[in-house]
Amino acid sequence: MKTNRRKFIATAATMAAGVAVAKALPLTTMTNKYHIVHHALFWLKNPGSIEDRDKLVAGVKSLGKIAQIKELHVGIVASTEKRDVVDNSWAVSEVMFFASLEDQAAYQSHPIHQQFIKDHSHLWEKVVVYDAIDA
Amino acid sequence: MKTNRRKFIATAATMAAGVAVAKALPLTTMTNKYHIVHHALFWLKNPGSIEDRDKLVAGVKSLGKIAQIKELHVGIVASTEKRDVVDNSWAVSEVMFFASLEDQAAYQSHPIHQQFIKDHSHLWEKVVVYDAIDA
Repeated sequence: MKTNRRKFIATAATMAAGVAVAKALPLTTMTNKYHIVHHALFWLKNPGSIEDRDKLVAGVKSLGKIAQIKELHVGIVASTEKRDVVDNSWAVSEVMFFASLEDQAAYQSHPIHQQFIKDHSHLWEKVVVYDAIDA
Repeated sequence: MKTNRRKFIATAATMAAGVAVAKALPLTTMTNKYHIVHHALFWLKNPGSIEDRDKLVAGVKSLGKIAQIKELHVGIVASTEKRDVVDNSWAVSEVMFFASLEDQAAYQSHPIHQQFIKDHSHLWEKVVVYDAIDA
């Protein structure tokens, strides 16, 4: 599980601060307040290459440095039951949470994201993105 | 943002318990420790029907009662920038986090989930599921 560094620091600071902070915290600090889910799935040019998959995983994890990404979950195909509706033809998944559409837009044009695309786009054949907002 | 009731209760209990609990909590309680992401996207039989979409949204939210679902994010299409890679042809999205593959399997066969399918499957034309495990 990739959790970005800012969140870790925020968590550590909260723990250190003890009871005063714990009592003052609004409930939402421990529930999810990030209303935009951005899910990108990558299909590799070399679908069987674990090396390419792992390079792309490392690249996606590097995106965690972008401040607008509140949560980042980098995944590979899970071995769940094979069913008609389950698409397991992809190789790498990134699920990101953003606080707003503006933050998602800022992420798209962020230099770290642009650099990621430059350095890794040769690895993928196809990308599919789903952007959802809380219903 | 849908956060299931158990999580709310757990959070409230944690807040009430104060410093002793706060200091004893491992850091992971505030980071994401649920390693399985289950993402289902639904395309409606009547794509333009807000009524059908909202019925399906309500149905998906009712799944939050299932104990194995640690987080549930129910969404509709976000108005992000139109790009070739962005698929915005779907209507309803459910992003769920599970602690294990076993929990995901238990969710599939759970009576509440089975009832949801019985009551709502007439609304959708197509479902696509992506199951990811932390890389």
